[in-house]
Amino acid sequence: MKQVRIMEKDRLDIFFDPSSVAIIGATKKTDKAGYVIFKNFADNKKRGIYKGKIYPVNPREKTILGFKCYRKITEIPGEVELIVIVVPAKVVPQIMIDAVSKKVKTAIIITAGFKEIGEKELEEQIVRTASEAGIRILGPNCLGVYYSKTGVDTLFLPETKVLTTGDEIIATPRPLFGRIAIVTQSGAFGIAALDYLAGRQIGISKFVSFGNKSDVTESEMIHYLLSDKETKVILLYVEDIKHGRRFLEIAKNVSLKKPIVVIKSGRSPAGARAAASHTGAIAGSDKVYDTVFKQTGVFRANDMEEFFDAGKALSMQPPALGKNIGILTDAGGPGIMAVDECSRKGLVVNHFSKKTLDKFQILKNQGILPRFASISNPVDLTGSVTDKMYEEAVDLMFQDPDIHGIILLGLHHLPGLREKYIDGVARISGKYQKPIVMCDIGETEMALYTRFRFDKLGIPAYPSPEDAARAMNSLVKYGAFLKKNKHEKEYISHFFKKKEL
Amino acid sequence: MKQVRIMEKDRLDIFFDPSSVAIIGATKKTDKAGYVIFKNFADNKKRGIYKGKIYPVNPREKTILGFKCYRKITEIPGEVELIVIVVPAKVVPQIMIDAVSKKVKTAIIITAGFKEIGEKELEEQIVRTASEAGIRILGPNCLGVYYSKTGVDTLFLPETKVLTTGDEIIATPRPLFGRIAIVTQSGAFGIAALDYLAGRQIGISKFVSFGNKSDVTESEMIHYLLSDKETKVILLYVEDIKHGRRFLEIAKNVSLKKPIVVIKSGRSPAGARAAASHTGAIAGSDKVYDTVFKQTGVFRANDMEEFFDAGKALSMQPPALGKNIGILTDAGGPGIMAVDECSRKGLVVNHFSKKTLDKFQILKNQGILPRFASISNPVDLTGSVTDKMYEEAVDLMFQDPDIHGIILLGLHHLPGLREKYIDGVARISGKYQKPIVMCDIGETEMALYTRFRFDKLGIPAYPSPEDAARAMNSLVKYGAFLKKNKHEKEYISHFFKKKEL
Repeated sequence: MKQVRIMEKDRLDIFFDPSSVAIIGATKKTDKAGYVIFKNFADNKKRGIYKGKIYPVNPREKTILGFKCYRKITEIPGEVELIVIVVPAKVVPQIMIDAVSKKVKTAIIITAGFKEIGEKELEEQIVRTASEAGIRILGPNCLGVYYSKTGVDTLFLPETKVLTTGDEIIATPRPLFGRIAIVTQSGAFGIAALDYLAGRQIGISKFVSFGNKSDVTESEMIHYLLSDKETKVILLYVEDIKHGRRFLEIAKNVSLKKPIVVIKSGRSPAGARAAASHTGAIAGSDKVYDTVFKQTGVFRANDMEEFFDAGKALSMQPPALGKNIGILTDAGGPGIMAVDECSRKGLVVNHFSKKTLDKFQILKNQGILPRFASISNPVDLTGSVTDKMYEEAVDLMFQDPDIHGIILLGLHHLPGLREKYIDGVARISGKYQKPIVMCDIGETEMALYTRFRFDKLGIPAYPSPEDAARAMNSLVKYGAFLKKNKHEKEYISHFFKKKEL
Repeated sequence: MKQVRIMEKDRLDIFFDPSSVAIIGATKKTDKAGYVIFKNFADNKKRGIYKGKIYPVNPREKTILGFKCYRKITEIPGEVELIVIVVPAKVVPQIMIDAVSKKVKTAIIITAGFKEIGEKELEEQIVRTASEAGIRILGPNCLGVYYSKTGVDTLFLPETKVLTTGDEIIATPRPLFGRIAIVTQSGAFGIAALDYLAGRQIGISKFVSFGNKSDVTESEMIHYLLSDKETKVILLYVEDIKHGRRFLEIAKNVSLKKPIVVIKSGRSPAGARAAASHTGAIAGSDKVYDTVFKQTGVFRANDMEEFFDAGKALSMQPPALGKNIGILTDAGGPGIMAVDECSRKGLVVNHFSKKTLDKFQILKNQGILPRFASISNPVDLTGSVTDKMYEEAVDLMFQDPDIHGIILLGLHHLPGLREKYIDGVARISGKYQKPIVMCDIGETEMALYTRFRFDKLGIPAYPSPEDAARAMNSLVKYGAFLKKNKHEKEYISHFFKKKEL
């Protein structure tokens, strides 16, 4: 049984689902990374989430958290699939030699102090040792892996922190399971992303921080995620890309099946200089990156907010197969703001066809929509809005073959609008295969409730009209990429099949 | 006493502090605007916040909420300084004639159905009647005024809403008192702004929604706010500007003393078309607006988030008197993201002078900063960061005469960073007259706590590196405007004098 499992498994699988793991540098000192990481595994084992074996390795301890401690990897009786290394950089070459004798399969090197500070030779030495024995390395100078389903958690930052006041406070939360994978060069940004996503209640499938990427690169990781059934969208943070040509091939291939959203920082010369001093990598011209991303259908986010917003949109909604957007609002001003942002991004908000206009006019004549409602796109339901009106209007807009996506602005403040339309709109959108995103503005109870409800029903909700327009833009750009590659039908049919499962 | 007060008061003051107000169209029907507005005044009177007289006017009621109801304004025994009109549009001309006989001074016309739907003549008729008697009008088609200090609240949207589940939920909160004035053409956007600001715990001085601006315009309102001691920053939302030349003069004058941040929507041709159909105004070319804002030192926000972020920065921090920004971080990636956004906005992140570099080197040699810290701007304190390091490093950066402003990225996740540095940084920044903004990424407990604490201590905190960079950009742009007009010294000395008060 055991053997079959290993045969079937891609070696990168082991990073996410090791049957045995040794923490090299596990310790009882609670403020050390070696303690936090070992405790993550020990806790998850107790909870029954991590099902494999765990071995602390530290020559100065007998037991840690009740687990027998080993002096060296080679003294561990059973097989060791994964080692997590948190000992100082200069010790790592010897650890890797031991790992080779032990026939270890994968290593996550958390330890910093390699290429990023000029210690290139030290890093290369370790990689040479490992690669000869087929050991795959994540890192060094990384945070490693977090995968909620198997309880693999090599993040050395505990979920809570104790303030000087003595209060314990959530500091580094782990998000719930979801459909977005995070692949990041920057550990700090990765951790920040987890904090953001946990707070916004967006789940993640897998988290990988690869740091110096001495062995496993971004390309290999996104290729791996292509066949990961749990991942629908990949969010990638990089400061440089290794093996550009390989990335080009892989990213394009992956993009046809799974949208990739990227932050490539070091966009400006000053930023590139900072990135180079940070990673030790030589940054290429940013224009080259832009071209690569365009060719491969990778959506390049302009900033952090757009990064997460696009990820959320692409994980919840199908792509837009055209760039003409219908805007439905109960607030004139924010409707215009959405139009402005659509235009800035190259989307259009055209007048409706005569057929659609006529249908809207009938609704007005019947008193179903307000007499003074604008119906020329944006549709403005005005302050007289009711839940029912949203349902009628959104259905009409979905029906128009010239409308490729809908931005719904549902400012909850108006008296006739309650929460009923949320389910109504979700139900109606389920009849169509076009994308819809929504916005409600506000940071107090009903705004948060409205956005949360829409999110839960699969309609991504945003706190500003521009955020919603940018999210729609990511769906339009992705749709254009699929169409250019004649892959839109396959993607969409797969998208809705997966949704039904 | 009474007479003296009126003599001293500018007529626009009455909108914010009337000694008597009549609500024309007050009603007992709880779902009507006339009920909500009258109840706002009645409640605020009971609470002792609104200190003037209130009169409901409605020919079909004897009393409303215990107040004697009048059939007509002219039947009210005492003086009426302000009327709030919520009766249908066609009745308003007669109301205004009555108001003239009653010697009313100001009117807020909430009622819609005028110029914005083509009823231009009806609107002009009312304005003619009023202006001959010197009655000033806010509106029509507006929400009017909210001013927490006097309890004037003409917002017809109650603070809470009852959902279909029976739950009562906060829907339209009123922010606390603060230093930012909101002046808006769009009522819906205004309400949304209140919801945003309340949730983010940013206070406002005065809120004015002027709708169709048949009489009082944006220009007059910002001119009024120039002498309003409670307002430090003006946030203005407009879809068009009336009397461009007048705006040019006034805005420039006001900008020298108080920063103005604007959203002018209808930026794109499609947006302008939507704006025109929404307000009935003919939109000018957007380039003209851009020029006007540049000439007058008005900071034009690209989107809603930047609008609020700039307002917050300008209300808390002095302007930057140059565009070279120092970036201090404990997270390499987010540091680069901040550099990128600075560059995009035309700011620079130059290498430090030799003198500053030497000082940093000494701190490294002394072991006060980590051995591998980058010190070339951005300063990256790395994962070994402690509270103490931030204090040392930020002080050094403030001292450098070539650094005009500081962006501090304090990602709280790292183990050595606790909350102590927050007070430390605030204390140190108090020694200098340069701006500082901060960012911590995350949406759970410690991130929210960190940002909240910084905000409270007067250092504006943002949830993304780009938001922080954009906020700094607003301080740089405002500083450049002041310098161009040789007004920076006066502004800064006044800024810190006010702060001490």
